[in-house]
Amino acid sequence: MALNVGVIGAGALGTAIAQTMSENVDELLLHVRKQDLCDDINNTGYNTQYYPNNKLNENIKATTDINDLKKCDIIFLAIPSSAFRETLKNLKEVLEEETIIVTTAKGIEYPSLKSMGDLISEYFDENYVALSGPNFASEIMLNQPTITNIASRKAENSQKVKEVLSTKQFKVKIIDDIKGIELCGVLKNINAIANGICEGMNINENARYSILTRGFKDTIEIIESFGGNSDTAHEYCGFGDLIMTSTSSESRNHTLGILYGQRLVIDEAASGIVFEGKNSIRAVRDICENNNIDSEIVNFVYDVIIERIAPIKAFNKLWENIE
Amino acid sequence: MALNVGVIGAGALGTAIAQTMSENVDELLLHVRKQDLCDDINNTGYNTQYYPNNKLNENIKATTDINDLKKCDIIFLAIPSSAFRETLKNLKEVLEEETIIVTTAKGIEYPSLKSMGDLISEYFDENYVALSGPNFASEIMLNQPTITNIASRKAENSQKVKEVLSTKQFKVKIIDDIKGIELCGVLKNINAIANGICEGMNINENARYSILTRGFKDTIEIIESFGGNSDTAHEYCGFGDLIMTSTSSESRNHTLGILYGQRLVIDEAASGIVFEGKNSIRAVRDICENNNIDSEIVNFVYDVIIERIAPIKAFNKLWENIE
Repeated sequence: MALNVGVIGAGALGTAIAQTMSENVDELLLHVRKQDLCDDINNTGYNTQYYPNNKLNENIKATTDINDLKKCDIIFLAIPSSAFRETLKNLKEVLEEETIIVTTAKGIEYPSLKSMGDLISEYFDENYVALSGPNFASEIMLNQPTITNIASRKAENSQKVKEVLSTKQFKVKIIDDIKGIELCGVLKNINAIANGICEGMNINENARYSILTRGFKDTIEIIESFGGNSDTAHEYCGFGDLIMTSTSSESRNHTLGILYGQRLVIDEAASGIVFEGKNSIRAVRDICENNNIDSEIVNFVYDVIIERIAPIKAFNKLWENIE
Repeated sequence: MALNVGVIGAGALGTAIAQTMSENVDELLLHVRKQDLCDDINNTGYNTQYYPNNKLNENIKATTDINDLKKCDIIFLAIPSSAFRETLKNLKEVLEEETIIVTTAKGIEYPSLKSMGDLISEYFDENYVALSGPNFASEIMLNQPTITNIASRKAENSQKVKEVLSTKQFKVKIIDDIKGIELCGVLKNINAIANGICEGMNINENARYSILTRGFKDTIEIIESFGGNSDTAHEYCGFGDLIMTSTSSESRNHTLGILYGQRLVIDEAASGIVFEGKNSIRAVRDICENNNIDSEIVNFVYDVIIERIAPIKAFNKLWENIE
């Protein structure tokens, strides 16, 4: 394929996507923050930090120099939402305006309440594509069957990204709802935390699945209130990612919820881990308030994680109000 | 409450619902097939077969005589769908036409393709109510928080059933889509089997949650093709029960799928267990064919369980066609 493709962020997902796309392109550039990891990748062929046992394809080249990305037609931003704006500023100095930026991050900037797509369009106009689905990175890295959704403001951009991403095992379905796909990515983390809190408290399954049902309905309501399409909630990026994130023990936000449900508070700085969902809670709560949406699930998560209300007290309030 | 209420079937769900409703009525009649279990319940206060450790409320009276149900205003049929028609015939001899019949069974009669509600209306006109939700019986028995949906053809019947069922811990939400609630109950079992087969084969989570997403979309399509409301799929009886049945290790149809995925075939007769989902596969497949719906998920389950095609072969076909 004649397209030049780069990935920024050599974490679990960035590396896995790079590995997948390297099947379709001559050379794949992987931008890495740390020089030692960059050297490891180029010298040994392994991302020693994330995938010590999976050899990278030989046409993946790591770099720490953002100028190397200048020639890229498509760039995947596989970085935490907290690092998004800073990275976009740096990219703006280097890239052409028509470069397609693909975001895998799920988050909302606080207090601006801008989505990752909104941030990209500040710097690169409408040339962005959002990618989301029930996609554990480790499984993508192992070339196991995976489907993802992508959406953008320009049909030809979605088409290009689909071409560069699709392999026999990695399927890409284009949908036409950029707002919906972004909201699904943010809201599933709230739901995963909510379900995790209940699990941590040993709340029974009938109640947990009912709370998840309520969360799914709230997701649809929020999507629609932003002019998104409720069908998006039925998609891989909606239903699929929501239930994976909320029920699988592999999900980070789900785990965060479990710990809070057990009244254990994580030191994120010391752990060096970013919980996207936690950072989004304030933002989602504001979004609901601004749009007169009263989501019991959002309130529940806000009460437990931000207000530090005792989980059982928060749960009793939720259960009283749920219907 | 002045209403007379009976439950037919002292299995896990019938007993649990009887226990819940006994909080609301003076006396609750529980119809039991076997005399020894009936005696156990009346003499010891325990359903020794299903709940040896949970004492039944004292106003639950067991009987083996169907004539005792004559005075009931509402009767819950908590029996397998395979025993439905026979039981209705017997009830018809005894009950008044205006008795409200509530069905908890999920199934479709084969080859007539009639739902349990269709069967009830053959004998009792339109006086039936369907109940469905993410409701593990053992949790209801323990008085743990639970929500269920009910639907009927007559609003006053739904209201009466809601009154007799609702407690602080057991919530009842009325919806206005009898066709949708019945279809959700049938289709979730197909999805649970599909997901179980994949789990039994050790298919990765990205693929499994995508298959479940596809199954949810097919559920919506099938509901709509029968004039049901797609909102029903978002309800506790839809989304909630679908994901519980498909992801919880407590679900019987899920377990059936896992065993088939491992190529283990259960002797149902020797096990004395009825897998509602298995009995419904042929029926659902016919329903799809009659309505020109091509559901890859239904085909997959049919291929593995009925046609006994090797699971990996069936999965490869599914994965090729899924989108």
